[in-house]
Amino acid sequence: MKGIQGCLTNAQKVVHTIFIVGARRMRRLIINGYGAFVGYKKGLVTVKKKDGNESVPLGNLDQIVITTSGAAISSKLIRTCLKNKVEISILSSSGRPLGKVFSITKSHVKLRLAQIEARRTSKGARIAKKIIYSKIRGQSNFLKSLAKNRTGESKDNILKTSERIDQLSSQLQELPDELSEIRQRLVSIEADAARAYWDSIAGILPAELGFSARKKRFEGPKDPVNISLNYGYGVLASEVYTLVEYSGLDPWFGFLHEDSCRRPALVYDIMELFRAAVVDRVVVTLALRSPNTLLKAIDATSGRLERDFRGTLLKEIFERLEQGVSFGGQQKPIYAHMLSQIRELARYLLDHSHDWKAFVLGW
Amino acid sequence: MKGIQGCLTNAQKVVHTIFIVGARRMRRLIINGYGAFVGYKKGLVTVKKKDGNESVPLGNLDQIVITTSGAAISSKLIRTCLKNKVEISILSSSGRPLGKVFSITKSHVKLRLAQIEARRTSKGARIAKKIIYSKIRGQSNFLKSLAKNRTGESKDNILKTSERIDQLSSQLQELPDELSEIRQRLVSIEADAARAYWDSIAGILPAELGFSARKKRFEGPKDPVNISLNYGYGVLASEVYTLVEYSGLDPWFGFLHEDSCRRPALVYDIMELFRAAVVDRVVVTLALRSPNTLLKAIDATSGRLERDFRGTLLKEIFERLEQGVSFGGQQKPIYAHMLSQIRELARYLLDHSHDWKAFVLGW
Repeated sequence: MKGIQGCLTNAQKVVHTIFIVGARRMRRLIINGYGAFVGYKKGLVTVKKKDGNESVPLGNLDQIVITTSGAAISSKLIRTCLKNKVEISILSSSGRPLGKVFSITKSHVKLRLAQIEARRTSKGARIAKKIIYSKIRGQSNFLKSLAKNRTGESKDNILKTSERIDQLSSQLQELPDELSEIRQRLVSIEADAARAYWDSIAGILPAELGFSARKKRFEGPKDPVNISLNYGYGVLASEVYTLVEYSGLDPWFGFLHEDSCRRPALVYDIMELFRAAVVDRVVVTLALRSPNTLLKAIDATSGRLERDFRGTLLKEIFERLEQGVSFGGQQKPIYAHMLSQIRELARYLLDHSHDWKAFVLGW
Repeated sequence: MKGIQGCLTNAQKVVHTIFIVGARRMRRLIINGYGAFVGYKKGLVTVKKKDGNESVPLGNLDQIVITTSGAAISSKLIRTCLKNKVEISILSSSGRPLGKVFSITKSHVKLRLAQIEARRTSKGARIAKKIIYSKIRGQSNFLKSLAKNRTGESKDNILKTSERIDQLSSQLQELPDELSEIRQRLVSIEADAARAYWDSIAGILPAELGFSARKKRFEGPKDPVNISLNYGYGVLASEVYTLVEYSGLDPWFGFLHEDSCRRPALVYDIMELFRAAVVDRVVVTLALRSPNTLLKAIDATSGRLERDFRGTLLKEIFERLEQGVSFGGQQKPIYAHMLSQIRELARYLLDHSHDWKAFVLGW
């Protein structure tokens, strides 16, 4: 396991190499489990725990993620992180990003104005179309990769769905460059693709997992696949939020997703590019490979994911983010593509580039 | 000392009643000094320290301010604060707001759009003029209140300056309602008023304090009055930032202050309304009442304010924020006026009210 020291169990430190961009490595420290005290001394982030102490040079970290309610953190570390742009991110037990420790000393106001302005122009419409194209092509390509290991009718059915989704994506070209006119159409194309995609996945998952349709968090799904997907999307949202914030964009003003005071629309926009490639793939692969793990994943009393399984899921998602994939002629970790995508979007909004090419995972 | 339990010394808890709006009391817990561990248990925020433990019901708090690098905070408390909208604010040792633990689950996007839009319309220009009016009238009125306790030439000089500033304020009416046209004029009126105001204050401060002119942080002042003012403005900025954020406005898009990636312009706009009434008054009063305290306030090695003096200053500023003053027919704590001002500005931007009346302190 590249970059991993230790694993995600009680009060253990996990230093996770997240991505390599140019000569710079991005690393995070994940505090997951009870009893750790995280402090700072002479350039080192120190993790004191019952079974011994560990430390990491602060210079090697870009983020500290706290996924547990059983840890403590020193105010010196919080201050030092703020001064050194090391982000502290707090996740809920269901993987939802709850909050972040933000420096309030900087903001890229010019970029944020350009972002808001683009919604009135053809730029905004083009971005929204590219997002949907990326999303449904990603779904189609993930199905194609699932088909690779199959034969007979199962393979044919999956490939048929994949083709249908590709046809939907070709409708996007016909739409005009006026966001308010086409939003409804975009959402409808997205919904058609999603229905076909999840039907196809339901068809190949082991029946005992009880996954018959995709259900969002508010729909209160009881099956481990949907609950895991929702957990994974929560983690992905937190990742994307961080990168959007880092890149100076405003998480709340999106293109495809409408303004909402409860959902950071741009984060949801960018997430579309990576849902299938990251979360769907991790959860579906896990469900196919070891359905028993998922069957035991739900805590009977709380109805939520078990702590150990959450750790497994987090680890799988972070590992997936590290995997090198090819896009736009560049082979690099998915996480690095995520950052590039957001930075390229910012450059496009600021007229520093003439186009933005939305990420599509190959198969 | 209304609302204060304990005082600002090592590892002590200070629960400070900040304002009363309607039936709601706003309280903060200040962690200042070494060795405190702040946690959460069964509805209580617990503060463990060498000389005993204390606790406060979380429901009684709206903010936890950490002004020291010698404390620790549990992740359970951080999570609970995020869920219950209790803000955690981190100040640097020089009083600068470093960061905040923010919930990333909500944003008032409609209001933020209206705020940005107003800068193109006459609304933005009217707001900018009102801000300058409030600022320089506040300076003039503070001078008038200083004149009250004086006689002879000293009194006459102060009142003359006050009149000159009032004359400057009357020039504002002549300016058109077009922000880009008048910004330069507004800044020049502000600068003229500031020169007269600080000259007048330099004239009455004890000479041994070495205050000859107002110097900002980046100008590297060495005298305790300027250093204290800068510390105080830092604290005020943090307070205003919090209230602006709470009210759903974007701290970075201002009216008077131009966009900058380093200064949250709206926070600086709103601060203008309260600089003289809060910070100048606290520091000048302290300098007149006990110049010796200020002479001993500078740490010889670091050139910064001594820890104990920072505590004194913080306490004085927070107490001043609690003092009831009259504006717009309402007698309430300054802090409550601050919140009302920001909320009224938001209502004005959303067209829920027809005007915004900027706070001016009486004398």
